[in-house]
Amino acid sequence: MTAIHGQVHYLDHAATTPMVGAAVEAMTAHLRDVGNPSSLHASGRHARRVVEESRETIAQALDCRPGEVVFTSGGTESDNLAIKGVFWARRTADARRVRVLTTAVEHHAVLDPVHWLGDNDGAEVELLPVDGTGRLDLDALRASIERDPESVAVVSVMWANNEVGTLQPVCEVVEICRPHGIPVHTDAVQALGSVPLGFAASGVDAMTITGHKVGGPFGVGALLVRRELAVTALVHGGGQERDIRSGTIDTPAIAAFAAAVELAVKHQAEHAVHVAALRDDLVRRVIEVVPDAHLHGPDVLGGRAGGVETRLPGNAHLGFPGCEGDSLLMLLDARGIECSTGSACSAGVAQPSHVLLAMGCEQEAARHSLRFSLGHTSTPADVDAVVEAIVPVVDRARAARRL
Amino acid sequence: MTAIHGQVHYLDHAATTPMVGAAVEAMTAHLRDVGNPSSLHASGRHARRVVEESRETIAQALDCRPGEVVFTSGGTESDNLAIKGVFWARRTADARRVRVLTTAVEHHAVLDPVHWLGDNDGAEVELLPVDGTGRLDLDALRASIERDPESVAVVSVMWANNEVGTLQPVCEVVEICRPHGIPVHTDAVQALGSVPLGFAASGVDAMTITGHKVGGPFGVGALLVRRELAVTALVHGGGQERDIRSGTIDTPAIAAFAAAVELAVKHQAEHAVHVAALRDDLVRRVIEVVPDAHLHGPDVLGGRAGGVETRLPGNAHLGFPGCEGDSLLMLLDARGIECSTGSACSAGVAQPSHVLLAMGCEQEAARHSLRFSLGHTSTPADVDAVVEAIVPVVDRARAARRL
Repeated sequence: MTAIHGQVHYLDHAATTPMVGAAVEAMTAHLRDVGNPSSLHASGRHARRVVEESRETIAQALDCRPGEVVFTSGGTESDNLAIKGVFWARRTADARRVRVLTTAVEHHAVLDPVHWLGDNDGAEVELLPVDGTGRLDLDALRASIERDPESVAVVSVMWANNEVGTLQPVCEVVEICRPHGIPVHTDAVQALGSVPLGFAASGVDAMTITGHKVGGPFGVGALLVRRELAVTALVHGGGQERDIRSGTIDTPAIAAFAAAVELAVKHQAEHAVHVAALRDDLVRRVIEVVPDAHLHGPDVLGGRAGGVETRLPGNAHLGFPGCEGDSLLMLLDARGIECSTGSACSAGVAQPSHVLLAMGCEQEAARHSLRFSLGHTSTPADVDAVVEAIVPVVDRARAARRL
Repeated sequence: MTAIHGQVHYLDHAATTPMVGAAVEAMTAHLRDVGNPSSLHASGRHARRVVEESRETIAQALDCRPGEVVFTSGGTESDNLAIKGVFWARRTADARRVRVLTTAVEHHAVLDPVHWLGDNDGAEVELLPVDGTGRLDLDALRASIERDPESVAVVSVMWANNEVGTLQPVCEVVEICRPHGIPVHTDAVQALGSVPLGFAASGVDAMTITGHKVGGPFGVGALLVRRELAVTALVHGGGQERDIRSGTIDTPAIAAFAAAVELAVKHQAEHAVHVAALRDDLVRRVIEVVPDAHLHGPDVLGGRAGGVETRLPGNAHLGFPGCEGDSLLMLLDARGIECSTGSACSAGVAQPSHVLLAMGCEQEAARHSLRFSLGHTSTPADVDAVVEAIVPVVDRARAARRL
């Protein structure tokens, strides 16, 4: 750590959040276990029991059936499995189904498989527009589907945006798609633990979740898949996970994932209140000291309740005109404040955010932004540190820009 | 555990082997770390450093360049990535390249993606024959390639068979393929740590390894990929791992994997001598007390040195005429002895082993077999327990069969 002040203020929970104690304990409790959950002997059966109990825990927390939980290596794999797997299965059943509809503000783990299907596998890709807050234009979705519903293979709309925190109207998307029998996938990686989330109640056919965004480990996630939905496997082999996802089952990580999901859901409401209060404070105070700074995405300052409903409680995505986002990031980092210019998965790629561009930002505005994302370890001291550092940092970034 | 004698004798290391202490320590040391290795701030850079040091450790242990190590979620994903990814890339470059050649005795993680390409994506699949010991018929490979070398997309030949332990002539396969520019993939999951293994020296273009077979964790593996080889990604997204394998990088698992690989390679020679001695003892004594039992795969009793060269040192795959393998497995399990009838990934599937059938076994013989696989925790007491139990167990299984 290079922090001048010694202490690190981690405000990048949307990239990854530290494991919670219960998850660390569940993981370490099983690290030394012997036995492949697919083996028939006692050690194998014991491992299988841990896996199935974890599956039940997740199912209960997320309002789905245990058999609908398909464990994967994480969010990116789940998104790829949902999109490619449903596209392939639907097109195989009816060759007319080649359209893939998604929003222009999805994570790359959705956009990239969608574009790959378009470039390599005959998919017709449509990126649906969003409004200035990043919210899907439902009329555009409706119009696109009604133009030719028989040709739509799959619709994928994220539950909450990873960059600006905007919540999407997923239930309305389902209402539009259901009469046509079109399956809906949602990437709920950022939503889980931050907003109420229920698989059955949402009506979606497939939902991506992952461990390391909710206090669980890296390397494990799940695709919740309605039993009726046909999904072609992405990875073939031993036939684990209903033959949808082959590969040796990762008992310790799954046990830890389940522990984290259970806690995240149990504490969601109080967590949301806690981080929303910190976030509101951060946004208000930063704009006080840097008056031309502005919030991207839905406004949160009109009141917390409204904010929680339209935006992730822990997300503050701020624009600082006249600065390069990367400069701000590095200057804050030097002061022990860790944040992001956007998706960690795109970090280091010198491109303006596709999310901000889709929201109508100019190239310039899309480059001068920072994402602060709060989580379960966040404290008022983290907010104080940002407020204290932001003026000199912005001044310096602006000076650097003028050189 | 249901063992009557209290103690469990785990003889299923080929399914999964317990984590070694160094791997558990590396994993737990990083479980509470904060930071996504793709993030640019200090925590992210720290995580990235752990990942890159792990990559260097693995590269050094396996005689490849760090940039040739592509981390995945494990062996099955690596096999799928190699086979589908190389097939897609090679066919895109030249539409004539549609043939996929592999052996009839591969793991399902190779066979199933190969068949999927055949059934769904225009691949022409050839399963090459093996001899009675399970060893690839090199003349058949040569003839198949020479029939039309331009049409071969990829050849995949495992380094060592997971059921009967037979070592394959991978270097000879490379010699046959190289003049035609045909890439060779090998699944070395079972070989790593048991026999000498070098990526550069072997000449293969891609090699699958995985953590949980060498004392590392589940949920992590790698595909070693020669830099010159084009591989189409299976999972698209953030562009991690040279854009070949997107998904958040799993720092703790990778650190543990590297620790396990380093130790496995360092101790390979002594490990092989240790488990081969136990294995030879097990085979000899079992056949002494059950005279019609017989070893499948290369003979090991002619001498250990010869055995180590043609077969994995820890593998004993024995046939017990007149018994159902599954009955033997459950009866041994009741006595605390854990083994397998074949691949754990196929456990519970009531089919004779495709490996034994390809070796020329009759259906009957392919059903009456058991795999004992020894590993780093195996002791003479494990062998004694098998020898003590095997006569009553075989008697009972035969009696059950006659009912």
